[in-house]
Amino acid sequence: MSRPLTLHPDRLLPADPATRAVARELYTAVAGLPIVSPHGHTDPSWFARNETFGNAADLLLRPDHYVFRMLHSQGVALEALGIGKAGRADPREAWRLFAERYHLFRGTPSSFWLDWVFAEAFGIAVRLEAETSDLYFDTITAALATEAFRPRALFDRFNIEVIATTESPLDTLEHHAAVHAENQRPGGWQGKVVTAYRPDPVIDPEFEGFRDNLVRLSELTGEDALSWQGYLAAHRQRRAFFAGMGATSTDHGHPTAQTADLAPAAAEALFRKVSADEFTAAEAELFRAQMLTEMAAMSVEDGLVMQIHPGSFRNHNADVFARFGRDKGADIPMRTEYVHALKPLLDRFGNAPGLSIILFTLDESTYARELAPLAGHYPCLKLGPAWWFHDSPEGMRRFRRATTETAGFYNTVGFNDDTRAFLSIPARHDLARRIDCGFLAELVLEHRLEDWEAAELAQDLAYNLAKQAYRL
Amino acid sequence: MSRPLTLHPDRLLPADPATRAVARELYTAVAGLPIVSPHGHTDPSWFARNETFGNAADLLLRPDHYVFRMLHSQGVALEALGIGKAGRADPREAWRLFAERYHLFRGTPSSFWLDWVFAEAFGIAVRLEAETSDLYFDTITAALATEAFRPRALFDRFNIEVIATTESPLDTLEHHAAVHAENQRPGGWQGKVVTAYRPDPVIDPEFEGFRDNLVRLSELTGEDALSWQGYLAAHRQRRAFFAGMGATSTDHGHPTAQTADLAPAAAEALFRKVSADEFTAAEAELFRAQMLTEMAAMSVEDGLVMQIHPGSFRNHNADVFARFGRDKGADIPMRTEYVHALKPLLDRFGNAPGLSIILFTLDESTYARELAPLAGHYPCLKLGPAWWFHDSPEGMRRFRRATTETAGFYNTVGFNDDTRAFLSIPARHDLARRIDCGFLAELVLEHRLEDWEAAELAQDLAYNLAKQAYRL
Amino acid sequence: MSRPLTLHPDRLLPADPATRAVARELYTAVAGLPIVSPHGHTDPSWFARNETFGNAADLLLRPDHYVFRMLHSQGVALEALGIGKAGRADPREAWRLFAERYHLFRGTPSSFWLDWVFAEAFGIAVRLEAETSDLYFDTITAALATEAFRPRALFDRFNIEVIATTESPLDTLEHHAAVHAENQRPGGWQGKVVTAYRPDPVIDPEFEGFRDNLVRLSELTGEDALSWQGYLAAHRQRRAFFAGMGATSTDHGHPTAQTADLAPAAAEALFRKVSADEFTAAEAELFRAQMLTEMAAMSVEDGLVMQIHPGSFRNHNADVFARFGRDKGADIPMRTEYVHALKPLLDRFGNAPGLSIILFTLDESTYARELAPLAGHYPCLKLGPAWWFHDSPEGMRRFRRATTETAGFYNTVGFNDDTRAFLSIPARHDLARRIDCGFLAELVLEHRLEDWEAAELAQDLAYNLAKQAYRL
Repeated sequence: MSRPLTLHPDRLLPADPATRAVARELYTAVAGLPIVSPHGHTDPSWFARNETFGNAADLLLRPDHYVFRMLHSQGVALEALGIGKAGRADPREAWRLFAERYHLFRGTPSSFWLDWVFAEAFGIAVRLEAETSDLYFDTITAALATEAFRPRALFDRFNIEVIATTESPLDTLEHHAAVHAENQRPGGWQGKVVTAYRPDPVIDPEFEGFRDNLVRLSELTGEDALSWQGYLAAHRQRRAFFAGMGATSTDHGHPTAQTADLAPAAAEALFRKVSADEFTAAEAELFRAQMLTEMAAMSVEDGLVMQIHPGSFRNHNADVFARFGRDKGADIPMRTEYVHALKPLLDRFGNAPGLSIILFTLDESTYARELAPLAGHYPCLKLGPAWWFHDSPEGMRRFRRATTETAGFYNTVGFNDDTRAFLSIPARHDLARRIDCGFLAELVLEHRLEDWEAAELAQDLAYNLAKQAYRL
Repeated sequence: MSRPLTLHPDRLLPADPATRAVARELYTAVAGLPIVSPHGHTDPSWFARNETFGNAADLLLRPDHYVFRMLHSQGVALEALGIGKAGRADPREAWRLFAERYHLFRGTPSSFWLDWVFAEAFGIAVRLEAETSDLYFDTITAALATEAFRPRALFDRFNIEVIATTESPLDTLEHHAAVHAENQRPGGWQGKVVTAYRPDPVIDPEFEGFRDNLVRLSELTGEDALSWQGYLAAHRQRRAFFAGMGATSTDHGHPTAQTADLAPAAAEALFRKVSADEFTAAEAELFRAQMLTEMAAMSVEDGLVMQIHPGSFRNHNADVFARFGRDKGADIPMRTEYVHALKPLLDRFGNAPGLSIILFTLDESTYARELAPLAGHYPCLKLGPAWWFHDSPEGMRRFRRATTETAGFYNTVGFNDDTRAFLSIPARHDLARRIDCGFLAELVLEHRLEDWEAAELAQDLAYNLAKQAYRL
Repeated sequence: MSRPLTLHPDRLLPADPATRAVARELYTAVAGLPIVSPHGHTDPSWFARNETFGNAADLLLRPDHYVFRMLHSQGVALEALGIGKAGRADPREAWRLFAERYHLFRGTPSSFWLDWVFAEAFGIAVRLEAETSDLYFDTITAALATEAFRPRALFDRFNIEVIATTESPLDTLEHHAAVHAENQRPGGWQGKVVTAYRPDPVIDPEFEGFRDNLVRLSELTGEDALSWQGYLAAHRQRRAFFAGMGATSTDHGHPTAQTADLAPAAAEALFRKVSADEFTAAEAELFRAQMLTEMAAMSVEDGLVMQIHPGSFRNHNADVFARFGRDKGADIPMRTEYVHALKPLLDRFGNAPGLSIILFTLDESTYARELAPLAGHYPCLKLGPAWWFHDSPEGMRRFRRATTETAGFYNTVGFNDDTRAFLSIPARHDLARRIDCGFLAELVLEHRLEDWEAAELAQDLAYNLAKQAYRL
């Protein structure tokens, strides 16, 4: 007999009864607020085409690097999960490998997100384990074939007010255009889907195909993106195009937070090297650094909010990268430095009116030491939420405990789900709301906040700050 | 109608009822102990001259970098707060900018300190917000004009047993002399105000006016402080003079914790370079490093306790520094290393009888990794309390949780307020006492301490350790 | 009148009553499980010879670097404790120095371990303090002379299922052979004592007597360990010999986690330098790095589990090292990097079937940032428990909170006591079981685990994972 799957209404709230009571009251008032998702990686074609999602493994297993990294760590071959060249694994069998090992996720946020998807999105009442593997696979796959599980229906059901995707400057944004056209159509679907400008493929000289990308950028813009001025002009043009498709932000996924502020001639000379594919690793780093400052300069002009996501050693597992490619759960955080790294940019634009830069980190030691003091001083800096490996109950608590006393709440920006796992988005926002309300309740119980202050803050953290910070 | 301002008697004590009961009992026994303030930045002229403090903004807003850094981070111009060239902002209007944004301080220690000052020091019964801005300004400004709010009266009312200020070797200590004379005067004020020897202006070759400072040091001492031996002799002489004005400690605010132990000839050669204003950044760093060891050598002789406060990137905001000068809320902590950095000094004096060095950090990752193991072994090392950005409820808890298991309680030195915000001193000590008692109560509840041990420790942490460690 | 010494049955369990109730139930079910001690430093001659332990100071004070480091930090001379040249201090007087200062250990795990030893192992009912010093010394010393306190009797009484010691490749393992012979003897003692292969003395070119050690290695193996191929063959032979004496693991105590994967000719050339005692510090580091990869290659062949214990600055106190030698409580943790350091080894063997590497750290900032992501991806990597300075209630809680959400529980390996303090072994395992059960209870109370999941995990963390991970 299978064990029941139930989601306790008080899950993730603090254990102390009095604290829990306050947390529950705070949470109840924000649980139903619309979802603002200002940073994520859902596929805009889902909302443009509104096709069905396929089977359980295709939707929930193969794209979720949190899930397959853990299975891989315990000896499950990625091939057996259908990762990489699709179709080499039977999806039902891949799902079974997952179901048999679901205990590996005990204590991880994945189990929280997935149990919500299972119980709430699909209405399954028993827990995932070896014996219920087929039941799960069949139930989920059948549901996904229905109208109720098409992307737009889920978007509406999830009460998403706005969602941002992330695209390269080389993207034509045709799916965003299609969604916008649908929005304009009388009686058309009203879901708001915006893009964000993620220029890594044309900024990072070490990105695969960088020079080809510059050629493509030239074609798209009519600028000579192989010349420094043309390159900058092409950025400006694409940023404007992205803004026209709803973008309010840019996003930069660099190995470090390094910035630079070269003299124009030096910047141009550096660009000649990288655009000619003749550069050292140090020159690549310097060019990325310079481009953060150039992007800030453009943000001062066009008002796009900058996001900096540094510190991941991408594709650390050489063999997995060679056989399966990018983004296969082998990205490992590195120690990251901000104080010296950001100074060149801040020396130039740190006090510029209207500029807004949201900093993320994978190195929690910087929360209290570097990031909160920086955001607690510079008008242009704000702190993104606990990110990636830290997008979790303990990670969020560490974030709030380490940053609030120096940066306050109002130099943070609410929650980002940062996910491509569309069905888990409500669970992720729900987790953040529960944890934030728990943290606020602890402050109330220690008389560090009044109850009405906590109630205002709960609304701000769940909804207002994200809208304001991302200008949505 | 304004909201009431009340200070809950159990504020900052743990939420769990049984733990709170123990914490409350521990706290009650130490709440009224005299304040020992062995490290801080109050102005000795206050106690020498005993003049009134001026208006609310002059006392509570303009000198408090915790306050104006947060306002600046949210877009308030420093000029509008009256920072920098005084008088350019109307104090009442500056205060209003603060009052309107007081919600920014939710969850920060500033709100705890300030609410205490408002409620307890000034007896204000409503919260600070836009509507109460004028009430606050008028109430505080009026009170400050009264006898009860002159420095000496507050010193007595605050039950301060001894307070240390911090002065440059170039300071004549005339205010300390005046206070000491007053102490000697029959019927004179009895407040104990001592100095501390902070030689950065004559030790750091990168300090503004370093060479001029050496000239001035020569004038003050009659030594040739532009020669190495004369320079060292001048230090010895000034240290003795400071000790005569009550100093029991020196204080060193270096960018890093680096120490060096050069051969005498090499040290002299290095001094020739830095005193001639012809040095590289590396040589400046090496000179500071060498001088920590020289200062330790003198401490072995004269018994002054050394304090090392490393790891702050001072004046990080170039534009703010250019327009407003030092200490404008733009100091940002950096990653700090102690294990290799301190070894030269420790190799020479690590086991020297009588030497006492108190280490501080802005890099909490060193608490459990470096500082507690160092202090838990070397007889000369002790740990200063959670400092600056970490002088806060969560910061103090992290300090105790990370250091106690390796260094114990008795290699720490009690609390320092480290402040120039005189009116907040009781609130700062009160906060530390509450947090320490809460931590002790948690240990009692988990049977990691007996209740009588916790009671002894509460007294030690609130009072005894500071007196012992600073030889006061 | 002396104060009573009592061990509260709920010690170390969370204070919240409902959480404590769950924790107590979990703990009760695992409290009596046998002890699996897969990594430690007890002396195999104890079990081979089964002699009595001597007096209280010889057993509990002189060998315990946790204890004498703290006393040293508070000014007690190591000589006075009988450290170093034995017999220079009267053991009763040494014990008194300890007893008088037992308050220094308040809040440290040493007090927890020692109080267990006093109360449970020796049945002492009053607390250690100045007045009870002689009572303690006499009671303990008398007990140690009895049969019940011989090593084998204690081993049985402590319910140890298996214990691993740690030996150099140069060790003849005669004591292990003697124990194994005893195990085989009809009616012989059945205690299982295995060794572990700790090759630092023949891998680290900076180890005292490195070249002599290679000569000795040649003698032991009949290989020419001064040639690269002979050296590797000698390792293989000794590993096989160790495995024959029960070893299932190797252990590597390097200053850093650096690995390398040199071409064979380069490795051989490097070996020529280090074996000729003509090398730079960088070459020594590179050789150690290369040898971690060579050891991994051998582990792929012979199945020995690798343990990497990096990050300690050994013998930091130059004077103490000169006068007293190694391991005198002056080892200080350093910042440690894993992501780049391990890549050469992982590029070669990261996905090798059967390879298992257990990573330890003294740098807690790597838990969530580097170690949990690495172990949560690579099939060969697992995380050792909170180590050394972090083998403590707060240290273990930080470990679980920082690693579980990314690595899960099943990429960790249960508890290691890592101790030479034989009598404290039950207390150390008990402490770990209490803390883990408390952590699990917190997850249950927040509905992050079901109660039956927590019950399974409690067994796994207390017993199963250590057996599986170490292949015992």
